[in-house]
Amino acid sequence: MKECSVTFLPYQQKINVPSGERLIRAALSAGVHINASCGGEGVCGKCRVLIEEGTVEGGISERLSKEDIAKGYRLACLVKVIDDIVVRIPVESSIDKSVMNLQATPRRTARIQAMDFERLKEEGHFTPPVEKIFLKLTPPDAQNNLPDVTRLVEHLKLDAGEHRLEVTLPVIRKISKVLREDNFQVTVTLERSVRESGKNIILNVQSGDRTDANYAIAMDIGTTTIYGQLVDLSTAACIGEAGDFNGQISYGEDVISRIVYAEKGAGLEQLQQVVLDTINNVLEKIFKKSKVDREDVSSITIAGNTTMTQLFLKVDPSNIRRAPYVPTASLYPPFSAKEIGLHINDHATALLYPQVSSFVGGDIVAGVMGSGMYENEELTLFLDIGTNAELVIGNKEWLACTACSAGPAFEGGGIEFGMRAAKGAIEDFSIDPYSFEPMIFTIGDVRPKGICGSGLITMAAVLFETGVINNRGKFNRDLDTPRIRMRNDIWEYVVAWKDETQLGRDIAITEPDLDNLIRAKGAIYSGCMTLLEEVGLTVDSVEKIILAGGFGSYIDLEKAMIIGLLPEVDAEKVVFIGNGSLMGARMSSLTNRIRQDVFSVTQKMTNFELSETPSYMDNYIAAMFLPHTEIEKFPRLKARMELRRAQTSV
Amino acid sequence: MKECSVTFLPYQQKINVPSGERLIRAALSAGVHINASCGGEGVCGKCRVLIEEGTVEGGISERLSKEDIAKGYRLACLVKVIDDIVVRIPVESSIDKSVMNLQATPRRTARIQAMDFERLKEEGHFTPPVEKIFLKLTPPDAQNNLPDVTRLVEHLKLDAGEHRLEVTLPVIRKISKVLREDNFQVTVTLERSVRESGKNIILNVQSGDRTDANYAIAMDIGTTTIYGQLVDLSTAACIGEAGDFNGQISYGEDVISRIVYAEKGAGLEQLQQVVLDTINNVLEKIFKKSKVDREDVSSITIAGNTTMTQLFLKVDPSNIRRAPYVPTASLYPPFSAKEIGLHINDHATALLYPQVSSFVGGDIVAGVMGSGMYENEELTLFLDIGTNAELVIGNKEWLACTACSAGPAFEGGGIEFGMRAAKGAIEDFSIDPYSFEPMIFTIGDVRPKGICGSGLITMAAVLFETGVINNRGKFNRDLDTPRIRMRNDIWEYVVAWKDETQLGRDIAITEPDLDNLIRAKGAIYSGCMTLLEEVGLTVDSVEKIILAGGFGSYIDLEKAMIIGLLPEVDAEKVVFIGNGSLMGARMSSLTNRIRQDVFSVTQKMTNFELSETPSYMDNYIAAMFLPHTEIEKFPRLKARMELRRAQTSV
Repeated sequence: MKECSVTFLPYQQKINVPSGERLIRAALSAGVHINASCGGEGVCGKCRVLIEEGTVEGGISERLSKEDIAKGYRLACLVKVIDDIVVRIPVESSIDKSVMNLQATPRRTARIQAMDFERLKEEGHFTPPVEKIFLKLTPPDAQNNLPDVTRLVEHLKLDAGEHRLEVTLPVIRKISKVLREDNFQVTVTLERSVRESGKNIILNVQSGDRTDANYAIAMDIGTTTIYGQLVDLSTAACIGEAGDFNGQISYGEDVISRIVYAEKGAGLEQLQQVVLDTINNVLEKIFKKSKVDREDVSSITIAGNTTMTQLFLKVDPSNIRRAPYVPTASLYPPFSAKEIGLHINDHATALLYPQVSSFVGGDIVAGVMGSGMYENEELTLFLDIGTNAELVIGNKEWLACTACSAGPAFEGGGIEFGMRAAKGAIEDFSIDPYSFEPMIFTIGDVRPKGICGSGLITMAAVLFETGVINNRGKFNRDLDTPRIRMRNDIWEYVVAWKDETQLGRDIAITEPDLDNLIRAKGAIYSGCMTLLEEVGLTVDSVEKIILAGGFGSYIDLEKAMIIGLLPEVDAEKVVFIGNGSLMGARMSSLTNRIRQDVFSVTQKMTNFELSETPSYMDNYIAAMFLPHTEIEKFPRLKARMELRRAQTSV
Repeated sequence: MKECSVTFLPYQQKINVPSGERLIRAALSAGVHINASCGGEGVCGKCRVLIEEGTVEGGISERLSKEDIAKGYRLACLVKVIDDIVVRIPVESSIDKSVMNLQATPRRTARIQAMDFERLKEEGHFTPPVEKIFLKLTPPDAQNNLPDVTRLVEHLKLDAGEHRLEVTLPVIRKISKVLREDNFQVTVTLERSVRESGKNIILNVQSGDRTDANYAIAMDIGTTTIYGQLVDLSTAACIGEAGDFNGQISYGEDVISRIVYAEKGAGLEQLQQVVLDTINNVLEKIFKKSKVDREDVSSITIAGNTTMTQLFLKVDPSNIRRAPYVPTASLYPPFSAKEIGLHINDHATALLYPQVSSFVGGDIVAGVMGSGMYENEELTLFLDIGTNAELVIGNKEWLACTACSAGPAFEGGGIEFGMRAAKGAIEDFSIDPYSFEPMIFTIGDVRPKGICGSGLITMAAVLFETGVINNRGKFNRDLDTPRIRMRNDIWEYVVAWKDETQLGRDIAITEPDLDNLIRAKGAIYSGCMTLLEEVGLTVDSVEKIILAGGFGSYIDLEKAMIIGLLPEVDAEKVVFIGNGSLMGARMSSLTNRIRQDVFSVTQKMTNFELSETPSYMDNYIAAMFLPHTEIEKFPRLKARMELRRAQTSV
C-alpha cells in the first residue's frame, strides 16, 4: 500500500501513514493535537486545518465558508490522506480558548497594583490626548461665506482657544454635510499634539453635541496573546475588554521562529495579515459587547515587543535576530489606524509604543510607564518573565535595561509533561516530607493533563526544600518511594499515576525537566545580577521589584526565591502588575502627559546587550544551582535549611 | 416600424430613430459629433461610446478591452439601436486631440512673461521644498546597535544639521534593506516643512548617491484641460510636459454641470475617478517621454479651481453652486499622492493650491504667485478669462478678487458656428471696408469649420469698426453685400460660403451670436469696474494688466479693447502669462519660499461677491454696448472712430 508523508506545521512533525488514512488519526499518531469534539463527524467544525501542500480527499463541509474552502481549509476529521501533504494547524484548532478567561486571575500571593486615576487627575496628568469640543458655529450668509473648514477653525480659535490646527482629508470630505445636519452645531474631535509645539489635529466632526461619547482603545500585542481594552475618556473607566491568542502562533511559538518565517517569500505579509485578523477580531468582540459606536473611538494605543511591532507594521524584522541585533526603528510617528489595516473607522489614529532595542520593546516601555517606576524615587527592578525575560532597573533619575533568553521552560517547552497554563495544568504542589506523596492542584480543578510553568517552579522548590532533589536538581535515589524511579535511563518523580490523569499515562517530572528549569531561572537571575553590576549596584540596594506579564502574575514568590529565579528580598518589596504592557497602553490612551513622557523615558533607557557583557557567563554558571552556587546570597533559605537539617538530625 | 429614442450625454441631445439604425448615424442626425475615421468599419476604434441605459446589438470589437466591454463600452459605428438607450460620448471620442499641441502657441501680439529662475536663485528664493542628501552612515556593531531609523536621524543631525525630523511608514518599511544595499551609504529625500516651525519629513531613502536625480511634478487641473510638467529640482528646468482634455468633459462642460452631476448617486466618486484617470494618463505620458525613474519624483504641486480641486479630492462640491456659495476648505494639508490615487510612487506628497472662495480658486492663487503680482509695487489687474472670469487687483500690499460668469461664448457655446480653439476654427478676420468681403485665418490653415472665441472677438471688433454692426451689435441692413442677410428671421453676416468650408454649409455670425458676445464681455468688463470701485480706484490707476489662461493668450488685445472686453490701456501695460496656474504650481515645486508665501497671499486676497454688490448690475447694463454706453471711457477708439467718420464724410 502506498505510504504518504504528512508534515504538521508549525510543529514540523512529520509522519508516514498509509494512503487513505484519516488526517485526524495521522495527527494523533504524530502526537499533534487538533481540537475535535464531535468524534470526527464533521459537525463541530473545530478541527479546521489548512492544506498547504499536496492533495487530499474530502474534508469539505458546510461548517467551512466558501472563502475558507477556496483558501485550502478542510476539516481534518473528514480528510483522507492520499498524497504527501503539508498541513498547518491554525491556532484556534490547537489551543483551548477557555484559558483566555483565566489569564487575569492572579495568585493569592500577588499584590496587584492598580492604576489610580483619581490621583492622576489630582496631579493634573489626566488630559486625554483626544478631546471632543462642542461648538455652535454662525451659519454662513452672503456677508460671511468663509469656507466650511475655515469657519470651523475660526470658531475653534475664538470660542475654544485652540491653535495650530490641522485638518485631515476624511474631515474635509464630510464637514460640509455634517455642519448642515444640525444647523452648524458640531462636535469636533481634536487630537492633541504629543509634543508641545506640534499640531492639534481635527480628527473628526459630528453633528450635534457628542461630547459625552469619547473613547479610546488600548491594545497589547503579545507573542502569545493579544488583549484590548475600551476606555471611556470622560471617566477613565475601562468599559470593555477582550483577548485572543495571537494567530501568528501557527507560524512559530516564539519571536525568533516568527522572524524566520517572515524571511521566507510572502511570510512577512502573511504574518501581518494574521495578527491584523486577530486584532480586528478582538476589536470586534469589544465593540459587540460594549455597544459603543466605532465612530466615537478616535485613538488606539498599541504596545508590543520589537518583533511584534515590526510584524504588525509589516516592517522586515530580519535584523532583530542577527548580531548586532538592530531593530528598524525606536520611535514611530502616529499612523492612521485605517491605513495600517485596523477596523475602527476612517479617522482614528494609532500610536505605537517605542522600542529600546531588538529585545527590549514597546511592551516593556509600556510596563515601565504603566507601573510608574519611571517617576518614583525608589530603586526598582522591573521583570517581565516569559520565553524571553526583560529586565529594567532604575528610578526617576536613570533607567537601564537588558533582555535574556530563558528558553521555553516557563511556557511548558522542553518539559516532558509541560503545557501552557490551561485547564488541567498542575499549578500548585506540595509533598509529604515522610511518605513523599504529593498533593496537586490543577487549573480548573480537573484531572491533571500536564505541568505549567508556575507549577514547575513550585514543584522544583518543594522537591528541593524537602530534599527530594539536591542543589543540582538530581533526585535523592535513596528515598523509599515508588514515585522516584528510572524510566528509559532517566530519573523522574511521578506526580500523578495514570488512572488519576486525563492522559492515561503517568505524569512525571524528570531530571532533564529540572535541568531545563535551572537553565531558565539561571539565565534570568544572572541577567539581573549582570545588569546590577553594570550599573554598580547590588541586590541589597533594590527597594522594589515589579513583576509584569501573565506568567509573572502566576509565580509563587516564595517558591521563585527558593529556586533562585528571583533574588531573595522581602515579599513586601514585590509588586505584581499583571499585563504591564496593556496598562501602559491604557495610560497613554488616557493622558497626554504620559504620551509625552514616553519619549524621554525611552531615550533614558540605556540598553545592555548581555552577549557583549563578559560577566554574564560567569554569573550564569554560578546560577546553575538551586538556588545558587553561593547559598549566602539567599540567607533566609539558608537559615531555614539549616534549621530543618538540625530538626531532621535531632 | 418601432422607433427608439437615443439620448446623447453629456449634451442631453435626444433623437428618435427607427429600430435597427446604426448609432453613429443617429449621432449625426442629432448633431452630435463622434470621432470616426475608418468609415464605420470598426477598425479605427475611435468611436468608443458608453451605453449607460438600454440594450444594443453589436458594437463589440477587438479594439475594445475586456474591461471596457464589461463596463458597457461599444464602438458606435458597429452598434445597432434596438431599444431606447442613453449613450455617453467619452471625451476622447468627441474632441480632436491635435488641438492640445497648439495650446501653448500664443498670438503674435502677446508679450509672454517667463519665469526667471536665475533671478529667483540670486534672490535666494530657490530652495527646493524637497532636497536629497547623501550620507555615509557608520555601520552598526556590537557597541553601537542603534535602530536603523535612529542611526539615520542621528547622522542627519550631526552631518547635515537637520532637525525636527519625522519618518514615514514607507521609509520605515524599506530602510533596513536600503541601508544594507550599499554598506550604509544612503540618499535621503527630505521634504522641508512649509512653515518654519514644522517638521522635516524623511520621504524616502535610496541606497548609494542619488542626489543628482531629484524631480517634482507641477500640475494644472483645468475644467477643460489638464497639463503637467516634470521639473528637475537641481536645475529648475522643465524636462517634460504633457496635457490632455479633462475626462470630466463627458459629464458636463462647465463647473456647474459637473457639480450637478456630482450630486447624483455615485456621481462624485465617478468624477473623481475620471479626473484621476486623466491625471494618471498625463503622468504616464510625462514619465514615458522623459525616462525619469518615478522613484526620484518626490512631490507634486496641483492647482485647480475650487470645483476641480474638490472633485479631485472627492469632496462634495454641492455648496459651491448654492447661495451663499461656500466652498469646503481654503487651505489643504499636504496629502500622500498615493493615498489620493495618483500613480507616482509610495512616498511622493501632493500639495494643493489653496482656494479663496467658491469661484476664485487655486488656479487663480497659483496665477497670482506665478505672475509675481503679489510681490510687486505696481497696481496690477490680473484677469483669467474663460466660461468664468476671475479678476484680481492689487499689489504687494493688498489684493482683492472676484469672479463673474461670462457664459460659454468665449469657448464657442451659444454661438451658432461656435467651436473650441481647434483645427479649422476661424481665429483671425478682417474685412474690406468697401466690398465688405472678409479675409479669414483658421487654426491649422485648413478650410473653416467654425469660429472660436478669439475669432469671435476679432470679428465683432472688425465689424464694429467698419460700421457693419452698430454699438448694439445689429447689422447695418443698408449695406450692399449678399453676405448680410436674413435667414430664419435672424440677421447674419456670412463669413464663408458653403463650398469654402468643411461643413458644406455657409458659416455665418448672427445677431444672437453678437448679443451673447456682448453679454459675455459686458460681464467681464463690469466685473473689473465693480472690483475697482469697491477698492476705491479707477482704470487709470491700473499700472499693469496680466492676462492668464489659454484663452487669454489668444486674445488680440487691440480687438478686445475695441469691443470693450478690456478697459482701454496702453498695450505695453499688458502682459500675457499663458497658463498661470501651471506656472504657479511649478514655482511652488521649485521654491519653498513660494510655498510659504502662498498662505499669506491667500489670506490677503479679499473676496467680493458680485451678486452682493449692487453696482455690478448697473455696470453690467452700461457695458451692454460696443464698446460701452459711455464711449468716453475708450478715448483712443473714440478718436479713431471720429477720424474715420470725418474721412468718410469728406
